[in-house]
Amino acid sequence: MECYDQLMTENPRFVKACRGEATDRTPIWMMRQAGRFLPEYRALRQKHDFLAVSRTPELTAEVTLQPVRKLGVDAAILFADIMTPVVGLGLPLDFAPGPVIETPVRTEKDLDALTPFSAEESVGFVMQGIRLIRGELPETVPLIGFAGAPWTVAAYLTEGRSSPSFSQLRTMLYESPATLARLLDVLTDMTCKYVEAQVGAGAQAVQLFESWAGLLDAPQYQAVALPGVRKILKHVRGLGVPAIFYVGGGSHLYEAIADCGADVVSVDWRTPIHEARTRLGGKYAMQGNLDPAVLLGDRATIAREAKRVLADAGPEPGHVFNLGHGILPTTPWENAKFLVETVHELSEKGA
Amino acid sequence: MECYDQLMTENPRFVKACRGEATDRTPIWMMRQAGRFLPEYRALRQKHDFLAVSRTPELTAEVTLQPVRKLGVDAAILFADIMTPVVGLGLPLDFAPGPVIETPVRTEKDLDALTPFSAEESVGFVMQGIRLIRGELPETVPLIGFAGAPWTVAAYLTEGRSSPSFSQLRTMLYESPATLARLLDVLTDMTCKYVEAQVGAGAQAVQLFESWAGLLDAPQYQAVALPGVRKILKHVRGLGVPAIFYVGGGSHLYEAIADCGADVVSVDWRTPIHEARTRLGGKYAMQGNLDPAVLLGDRATIAREAKRVLADAGPEPGHVFNLGHGILPTTPWENAKFLVETVHELSEKGA
Repeated sequence: MECYDQLMTENPRFVKACRGEATDRTPIWMMRQAGRFLPEYRALRQKHDFLAVSRTPELTAEVTLQPVRKLGVDAAILFADIMTPVVGLGLPLDFAPGPVIETPVRTEKDLDALTPFSAEESVGFVMQGIRLIRGELPETVPLIGFAGAPWTVAAYLTEGRSSPSFSQLRTMLYESPATLARLLDVLTDMTCKYVEAQVGAGAQAVQLFESWAGLLDAPQYQAVALPGVRKILKHVRGLGVPAIFYVGGGSHLYEAIADCGADVVSVDWRTPIHEARTRLGGKYAMQGNLDPAVLLGDRATIAREAKRVLADAGPEPGHVFNLGHGILPTTPWENAKFLVETVHELSEKGA
Repeated sequence: MECYDQLMTENPRFVKACRGEATDRTPIWMMRQAGRFLPEYRALRQKHDFLAVSRTPELTAEVTLQPVRKLGVDAAILFADIMTPVVGLGLPLDFAPGPVIETPVRTEKDLDALTPFSAEESVGFVMQGIRLIRGELPETVPLIGFAGAPWTVAAYLTEGRSSPSFSQLRTMLYESPATLARLLDVLTDMTCKYVEAQVGAGAQAVQLFESWAGLLDAPQYQAVALPGVRKILKHVRGLGVPAIFYVGGGSHLYEAIADCGADVVSVDWRTPIHEARTRLGGKYAMQGNLDPAVLLGDRATIAREAKRVLADAGPEPGHVFNLGHGILPTTPWENAKFLVETVHELSEKGA
């Protein structure tokens, strides 16, 4: 079967790369690979809205598996939203199309009103989805679970929706740091339970998304956001699966997060992988970082830029090929498939 | 008059700070100070839409002068949009509320269809506004003209509107670099003419806004965006007024732009001023960089953070206090005024 080209007598190449071990080819998956650029996904979304897809295990499984079948990627990533678990804090959640929190959390009183989080009770559908996906995935294609990092989830929780500035959160940073710290503690605790439940259900790696790292300067990030991140990443590693830390807009933060304690740091396209690796102290496997806009180009462009990223990552083991940001909804799926094939071909050892 | 507290026997403190000369107090103005956070502006906008305000010299002058009267800032900045001049290329422009270009520019054919730019013929209302403003401004408060940097203007021109990803532009970067280079050349030429007309009409400094610097990595920025920037900044300096270069999301770019040739580099809040100054080779006066969210806080917070930014900028001359990004529309105007007073008080020499 052309998509599943690994021998099944050893760990999948994705897991090996996360562990910094040598692989036969560089593994590749793409952020947001389960999503709008796939015709199968769009067809399914014409019948079911986003919430229905993310809360119905069979639909979650279907859209998670679509890119694995179609593109031959080396890992699946659970279809969900970083805000999915907050319903477990008693916060009604809608999508229009970004996340909308009807009752933003900004004060001590708002925090007092939150309910204790239990993953199986409040978002059991996620774990049911994971079990269905694992039943369908070949052994060579691990399933990545994921969660938002506390600071990034707090950005949406305090604002109530997406925003170019997230000024509510940044105001709390200056104005009510104790309340912010309490909110981040609540979210850290929630996230530890949530990822533990995902791994318990079958997730074989966990990616923590700090999409809004770039709202903070380095001392602020270290003081405010990093402690929760470190706790969650340590918790993930304690569960025996690789922990991947995605840092969005964090070109200025690599030194500040050098002791984050992940297995893999996933970087956006603004910083070369070799530079990020060095600034992180050379301690982590690296994931990234093709500019997703490249996939709107022609095949010669895609091949050239894929080669550039592979060369940038260098010959040493410990590289998971990915985009520097989510795949763009206008990407032709044939281009995404071509990228997967190209990365596999270009990186093949002893070929 | 309390707002105008300088002696008029020498250059205004804003100009002196731009030139790296010592000043009696650190000058301050705020990006987007002519705008939505002011009650007077909102009242005026209830009667006139954005286009009307930016194309009617009397209204442009009024909203440009409002923050000078109300806040006591050390410089005025022309009320306009970075997309204002593109009507001079034959491109219809609307605001809804961000800029909307009905006919995006993406191909050689689109470029062939552009009309030659003449500032006085196509956007003469801007220059008329500048003349009115200069007639009203006290000598101690210079008027800053401005333009968008070619890469940032190209982001909107190719996409047709704002976007979180500007994928059209980034696709051109990989797919049709020659067409992109031609577009950037057209915009560089347009911008040189536009800022020259502004200075001719009375603008006493020019700020070039590279709001979307962060779409590019450092080698890309140097190769693609910087040449036009250098040309424009050199042109501005040749006109005898200070050239300010604002770099948004450019924490990873300071080394790459170290030879930009501005008088002043304006940095966002993610990088400390002392760090940016060092990475720029210590060659420039610095502008910035208070997080605008601080102005949503209380006075103790504002005073503390203003003090921190002043300490970060250090005792050496050549600091223009500003925000790291545009003032937030929800900012209480009293807080903006308090910031101006606080910066003046804290920085007063020999007090």
